[in-house]
Amino acid sequence: MSLTASEKITSWLTDFEAALAARDAERAAQLFAPTSFWRDLVAFSWNITTVENRDGVRDLVTATADTTNASNFRLSEEPEEADGVITAYFTFETAIGRGSGLLRLTDEGAFTLLTTLDELKGHEETRPKGVEHGARRDRVTWKERRTAEIENPDPYVVVIGGGQGGIALGARLRQLGVDHVVVDKHERPGDQWRSRYKSLCLHDPIWYDHLPYLPFPKNWPVFAPKDKIGDWLEMYSTVMEVNFWGSTTAKSAVRDESGRWAVTVDRAGEEVVLHPAHLVFALGVSGKPNVPVIPGQDVFAGEQHHSSQHPGPDAYRDSKVVVIGSNNSAFDICGALWEVGADVTMVQRSSTHIVRSDSLMEFALGDLYSERALAAGVTTHKADTIFASLPYRILHTFQIPTYEAIAEHDKEFYDRLEKSGFRHDWGDDGSGLFLKYLRRGSGYYIDVGAADLVANGEVKLAHGQVVSLSAHAVTLDTGQELPADVVVYATGYSSMNGLAADIVGQEMADRVGKVWGLGSETTKDPGPWEGEERNMWKPTQQEGLWFHGGNLHQSRYYSLYLALQLKARQEGIPTPVYALQEVHHTY
Amino acid sequence: MSLTASEKITSWLTDFEAALAARDAERAAQLFAPTSFWRDLVAFSWNITTVENRDGVRDLVTATADTTNASNFRLSEEPEEADGVITAYFTFETAIGRGSGLLRLTDEGAFTLLTTLDELKGHEETRPKGVEHGARRDRVTWKERRTAEIENPDPYVVVIGGGQGGIALGARLRQLGVDHVVVDKHERPGDQWRSRYKSLCLHDPIWYDHLPYLPFPKNWPVFAPKDKIGDWLEMYSTVMEVNFWGSTTAKSAVRDESGRWAVTVDRAGEEVVLHPAHLVFALGVSGKPNVPVIPGQDVFAGEQHHSSQHPGPDAYRDSKVVVIGSNNSAFDICGALWEVGADVTMVQRSSTHIVRSDSLMEFALGDLYSERALAAGVTTHKADTIFASLPYRILHTFQIPTYEAIAEHDKEFYDRLEKSGFRHDWGDDGSGLFLKYLRRGSGYYIDVGAADLVANGEVKLAHGQVVSLSAHAVTLDTGQELPADVVVYATGYSSMNGLAADIVGQEMADRVGKVWGLGSETTKDPGPWEGEERNMWKPTQQEGLWFHGGNLHQSRYYSLYLALQLKARQEGIPTPVYALQEVHHTY
Repeated sequence: MSLTASEKITSWLTDFEAALAARDAERAAQLFAPTSFWRDLVAFSWNITTVENRDGVRDLVTATADTTNASNFRLSEEPEEADGVITAYFTFETAIGRGSGLLRLTDEGAFTLLTTLDELKGHEETRPKGVEHGARRDRVTWKERRTAEIENPDPYVVVIGGGQGGIALGARLRQLGVDHVVVDKHERPGDQWRSRYKSLCLHDPIWYDHLPYLPFPKNWPVFAPKDKIGDWLEMYSTVMEVNFWGSTTAKSAVRDESGRWAVTVDRAGEEVVLHPAHLVFALGVSGKPNVPVIPGQDVFAGEQHHSSQHPGPDAYRDSKVVVIGSNNSAFDICGALWEVGADVTMVQRSSTHIVRSDSLMEFALGDLYSERALAAGVTTHKADTIFASLPYRILHTFQIPTYEAIAEHDKEFYDRLEKSGFRHDWGDDGSGLFLKYLRRGSGYYIDVGAADLVANGEVKLAHGQVVSLSAHAVTLDTGQELPADVVVYATGYSSMNGLAADIVGQEMADRVGKVWGLGSETTKDPGPWEGEERNMWKPTQQEGLWFHGGNLHQSRYYSLYLALQLKARQEGIPTPVYALQEVHHTY
Repeated sequence: MSLTASEKITSWLTDFEAALAARDAERAAQLFAPTSFWRDLVAFSWNITTVENRDGVRDLVTATADTTNASNFRLSEEPEEADGVITAYFTFETAIGRGSGLLRLTDEGAFTLLTTLDELKGHEETRPKGVEHGARRDRVTWKERRTAEIENPDPYVVVIGGGQGGIALGARLRQLGVDHVVVDKHERPGDQWRSRYKSLCLHDPIWYDHLPYLPFPKNWPVFAPKDKIGDWLEMYSTVMEVNFWGSTTAKSAVRDESGRWAVTVDRAGEEVVLHPAHLVFALGVSGKPNVPVIPGQDVFAGEQHHSSQHPGPDAYRDSKVVVIGSNNSAFDICGALWEVGADVTMVQRSSTHIVRSDSLMEFALGDLYSERALAAGVTTHKADTIFASLPYRILHTFQIPTYEAIAEHDKEFYDRLEKSGFRHDWGDDGSGLFLKYLRRGSGYYIDVGAADLVANGEVKLAHGQVVSLSAHAVTLDTGQELPADVVVYATGYSSMNGLAADIVGQEMADRVGKVWGLGSETTKDPGPWEGEERNMWKPTQQEGLWFHGGNLHQSRYYSLYLALQLKARQEGIPTPVYALQEVHHTY
């Protein structure tokens, strides 16, 4: 008599729990398929790590079973079976917390296992009562307490960067009772968005973009314009009681022998030194503008600026504008310039991947993040769990067919684009946008309309590297001269390392190594294979130094795991890190 | 063979629909029990109205069946049967919209029927796409559009008062595409709360207090302090894109022959005249401070102010403070003064109803608005629907046993309070707090701790009417002299009429009549019976003049029905009002 899906899962979980209880790494390993992936977010490893195959499982169990002492594995809903794979959600406990996970089971054993730590015992997130009833002498009001918290000169955590990443983390830390301050050079939360070029909008749809605790309301637009996002982040920061210091620039951070940092910041002109135990960089995956140095920049008679400084098109209606670059910002800026009637030329230096926003939603995100997904019971948390459960090692194999379907669906568009001379690619292995994002954080445009302008020749296209500027023109290595009143360097950003180095020094930044990328050995993501985003949301080679951020989805999801790691350290809970990431690249 | 609950309801709905379709008022009436109540929110009556018994049903159907043309009545979930009453939720359509309702059916016929208009056909609320994809010349950005909207000199609706009521209505109007402006004398939304005495907090728990579209997050406290509510309202107003004019005081409003108002406002020192078709007062159920005129106020040497101007206790640590009044504000202020060590005397002028916050939650609200209710499937919307379905005429019969249970549960507390000399009541008919609120909007304290101070004598208690002030004392009609450095008049508020009269003139205010109250013939709520809150959220005797507000629950729930009435008028949809309220009282 064959077992039901539920029985198979329950049996597997029981066996797995028994193997862990017996500290029998071999038995645990044999419960996995020969090709298999176990991704753990903090629950077992106090790290964000993926082990592969039975060897990996054996190693992880051997190293962590004792301290984790996982138990009480339970199915949390009826599993689903399709194509020989049973997908099941479950919960479990560890010595210090409660977790949950997702298991994909085949006849060969577990194919993928995700385990996540969701809360620490004794530090569960609960709804506060708020005002304390009763009468007590010299009561401190909420406002008095909030003021004191914000001005706390001795926070346990300092977060540098108060965009969506920093404030989502701040909200988590606040809720977990971790003293923190989030510093940002802008005056108000959201100014990071408000200060960008005026046509900027979220290219990801709303269902993918919620922040922790407070989802966007049902009347929020699918694609939010930058100023509306700015308002949301400002209000979010206030109502979530994030300790936000605006107009504050981190100048330097030095770690002393006691294990505390001395973080020197300029707060609206006043120098303040903070002494946190932990320093988190949340300065954006694309943190530091890349401004190329080009002969003749000093003689160029017009205006020139990096895309991050681009104010929007209004002043350039009657100008000849050369935009150098062909990724997201370049397209957005070219489109907005065209809309006001400017004479625009895009300089394509290397090939770009383009996918239309509607197609991205339909083919790539729709099953997880959409009204359709919600109607099918895929809540944001469930979608995040599914997303997190897909091993990076094989993610491209799921993505390639998606982008093949998009190529087919939008064939006429891509044909037209190619005919215009635009150099288009689908990523080194045809896996499209999301893996480009995860591997290198660049090289694509989510088309919200400007691609057609290039395809139709409304925005002029030139190819090549810029070799020099003259008073009124840009010269390419092809010899082509592009008349220019304005040059916009949409030349991208370097990773967070550069910004971190400015603050902690090059030596420490080098010791910590490259941030972001998977080690996929594709363009701009050198090997060896890492299995996880380098240095993101997890311990680094420098104790007390962390990196956080990413898009809104990642800021939402990974902020929990980073916050729990920080909370555990604050509470003195042992946090033995399994497989601390090694450093292979220092840039 | 007996019918199931579902079959009985379906049969009733089918019969009711057939009677309406046949315009057969008598047949419709016979479907109701001899004692029965049909409450309609806009769907049939373009009014907020309750008809009673078969006569009332006959009258409502006769007047409205033709224009309403209701059809397509459908059960929306499995009905529940208990104690011979089947409770069922259903949906239906009318000629111009879609609605829903709640039916309680007994063997005698319908006992209660609630029908509500939920949306207008062709004007359904949907999630906007936000940024328009594609390239278009001279695109208007979101920020440019928002700025223009806020500064729109010709709004269709002007809302006077930007507290929770005004901005909840503003949010609804915004979502329905009704041009509006909400004016408030305070600089920012939420300042209405921020500017009050520092110990103020919400006395209702969070589950009762959500605003439309954006519920409080799960980490929001049960009882929110005033400044936190202030921040939320400010955030809400911004992210909901309410057109809020701060620092703006309405001076006068005159209606001209064309049916437009000329509303003169002072906007931060500049006089602006607006010409809306509709003027909504949302100035609070308790709008205008009642400051008694007492001989000797001019010779009193200390500080004296109304509770609405009370800054909080900090300046009065070493003062003798006499607080005149014994309702919510009086207790809050006495409690906070005691907490800083002031010498406090409360002057009770008439009896007060007190109920402890915890008991109120447990006995009165818990089945509808609590984690327990949510766990039982009672969402906020469902709770609102149940609440709205209970006819005001018999609401006290449900409330009396609740307060009897509270009296029993807190017997020791009430005994102690009585022993201290405090004059306590349970309302004229023992129906407690909520009916006092609905009938007169005053006469109670939700105890969050200060009652014990009075019971224990920590806050001194005096009885009587204040007859005069001298330089350093308050004299009561009992002859008692109370030494005083500070006098706080916690003497309540007059209704919105007074504020409206200041703006539209006494003549128009008198024509519109008393606002609030049910006509229950209990203290401060003279008859005749009205069946609904006078003049609230529904057409008044002055076309284009409306009243909105109440607590957060009412602001949330009734803002929809008021917004739909305004939207229909903007769209030129016929809105024949059934049973326009008559005026019996002008104060």
